[in-house]
Amino acid sequence: MDIVAELLSGSRRALARAITMVENECHEAAAMMQQLYPRTGKAQIIGITGPPGAGKSTLTDKLAKKYRQLGKTIGIVAVDPTSPFSGGAILGDRIRMNELILDEGVFIRSMGTRGSLGGLSRKTADVVAIMDAFGKEVIIIETVGVGQSEVDIVKAADTTVVVMVPGLGDDIQAIKAGILEIGDIFVINKADRADAERLNSELEMMLVLNQSELDWRPPIKKTVASSGSGIDELAAAIDEHTNYLNKSGELERKRRLRANNELLSLIKEGISRYVVNRMSVSGQFNSLVASIERREKDPYTIANIILAECLR
Amino acid sequence: MDIVAELLSGSRRALARAITMVENECHEAAAMMQQLYPRTGKAQIIGITGPPGAGKSTLTDKLAKKYRQLGKTIGIVAVDPTSPFSGGAILGDRIRMNELILDEGVFIRSMGTRGSLGGLSRKTADVVAIMDAFGKEVIIIETVGVGQSEVDIVKAADTTVVVMVPGLGDDIQAIKAGILEIGDIFVINKADRADAERLNSELEMMLVLNQSELDWRPPIKKTVASSGSGIDELAAAIDEHTNYLNKSGELERKRRLRANNELLSLIKEGISRYVVNRMSVSGQFNSLVASIERREKDPYTIANIILAECLR
Repeated sequence: MDIVAELLSGSRRALARAITMVENECHEAAAMMQQLYPRTGKAQIIGITGPPGAGKSTLTDKLAKKYRQLGKTIGIVAVDPTSPFSGGAILGDRIRMNELILDEGVFIRSMGTRGSLGGLSRKTADVVAIMDAFGKEVIIIETVGVGQSEVDIVKAADTTVVVMVPGLGDDIQAIKAGILEIGDIFVINKADRADAERLNSELEMMLVLNQSELDWRPPIKKTVASSGSGIDELAAAIDEHTNYLNKSGELERKRRLRANNELLSLIKEGISRYVVNRMSVSGQFNSLVASIERREKDPYTIANIILAECLR
Repeated sequence: MDIVAELLSGSRRALARAITMVENECHEAAAMMQQLYPRTGKAQIIGITGPPGAGKSTLTDKLAKKYRQLGKTIGIVAVDPTSPFSGGAILGDRIRMNELILDEGVFIRSMGTRGSLGGLSRKTADVVAIMDAFGKEVIIIETVGVGQSEVDIVKAADTTVVVMVPGLGDDIQAIKAGILEIGDIFVINKADRADAERLNSELEMMLVLNQSELDWRPPIKKTVASSGSGIDELAAAIDEHTNYLNKSGELERKRRLRANNELLSLIKEGISRYVVNRMSVSGQFNSLVASIERREKDPYTIANIILAECLR
């Protein structure tokens, strides 16, 4: 039985292997994804992001348990764009989730930058698609950090939860500005800390200033993930957002944008592979790079020459 | 007089305008960069990165002053991959640098993700090249954050300083793993804090475990940037690394790699523009995206079809 058939029959081992194929950029991965793609589009995809130390893993953990209680099957992709570790190596915080690991209805995978020339966001999207095709009803993408790569990664989610935490200092101002746009729901975790109210007011003010033309007004929820406090309310807010997405046509718009971006990034990857392979064979690429390094040529001119050569 | 001539004659206004052209992806930017490129390669380029709250801006500030005392001209590019603000809008922390702003020998520019479809690291490299051609002797790239995008951004630097700070909590473990590879020099800032020694031991251990085949062993320097303590020692370590780069041939290797990556990213951008333009004209791109969204087609197959059509 081939891997696609095995995976669709519910084999967790096949699921793990399929993800590894994507991670390792196996030649066969593309053919597999082609077969799986028509089976995707059913799962509810939740993104959880925020600065280091905000307690995202614990929050993910508790949210996953909540969905399990509602009888849903769960996939979790924990992505760390700053880590070279992947796959089998379950990263730091994720070890805490061992309770979930024993649950057959939950599949957890961590991903790092191993072997990846960027492209981590596309790989994450592929892993989500695999879990979706496998039949996971809720898929949670958890990322460490708040940089552009994390923003790109959570673009694969229908609903993005941005987790903040009181007392992270000055730089948080800058961070807030950047992630305001991607948050559908904001969470103030560790809300039992002294300065939670100040963060709440600041966040509210920024959200008012940043009001978009959409009908959805991102709510701010307070949680203490370690004790489970506020998780029910967060799950309710996610449900509400899902309803909004469905009714407003926004889900369709989000998914079209996603299809668009995915196609573009596949094209970019394909072309880079093609150009480098083609030029490597002739040794041309290296000699052009050397001439740029010696400042005899500039990269802008060379790029145009190569494009003219390769494009129809 | 055209902008290139003005810039090379030392006009700060032309410098600012040239950078804006790159930021705004002006059509004329490529031609300008072609002319400036042969003038580049002279500046010493220093990257400063680390988690939010580590005090990178203050450290950059103090380091810039130190170089000014040595009579060198300075360019500073403060890049925030999480912020949509750019250009004129000098971000939060940077306002503190007003002492430097009054100094004609210092040029400061902040960059965010405005108008950028990714590509922030390439734009940063272009801005560095412009400052280099202008004649800045030391160029400091300061980034907020520790994600993959920040790593990509500091790749434009010859010497990368990773700034850590005691007491940032658990997630810092994961961060450390990711940035060990890019640090040529590590700084423990706010080293007067209680747990600085613990961070120092942890970092030392990780550096031993992570020893590369290079002859350079990254030193750990302690600073209190706010008081200026340790800045002279940091500057000395940067000098030492510069000497190492020159003697070992490592500078050449780094710059060749950089030329390689820059060329590749220019090619990727060019191709995306070409493909999207070509397909938009016929409306083909949108209809293909729609068929992917409806799950009638998968993006992998479509990407191959488009590549076959566009490539020679």
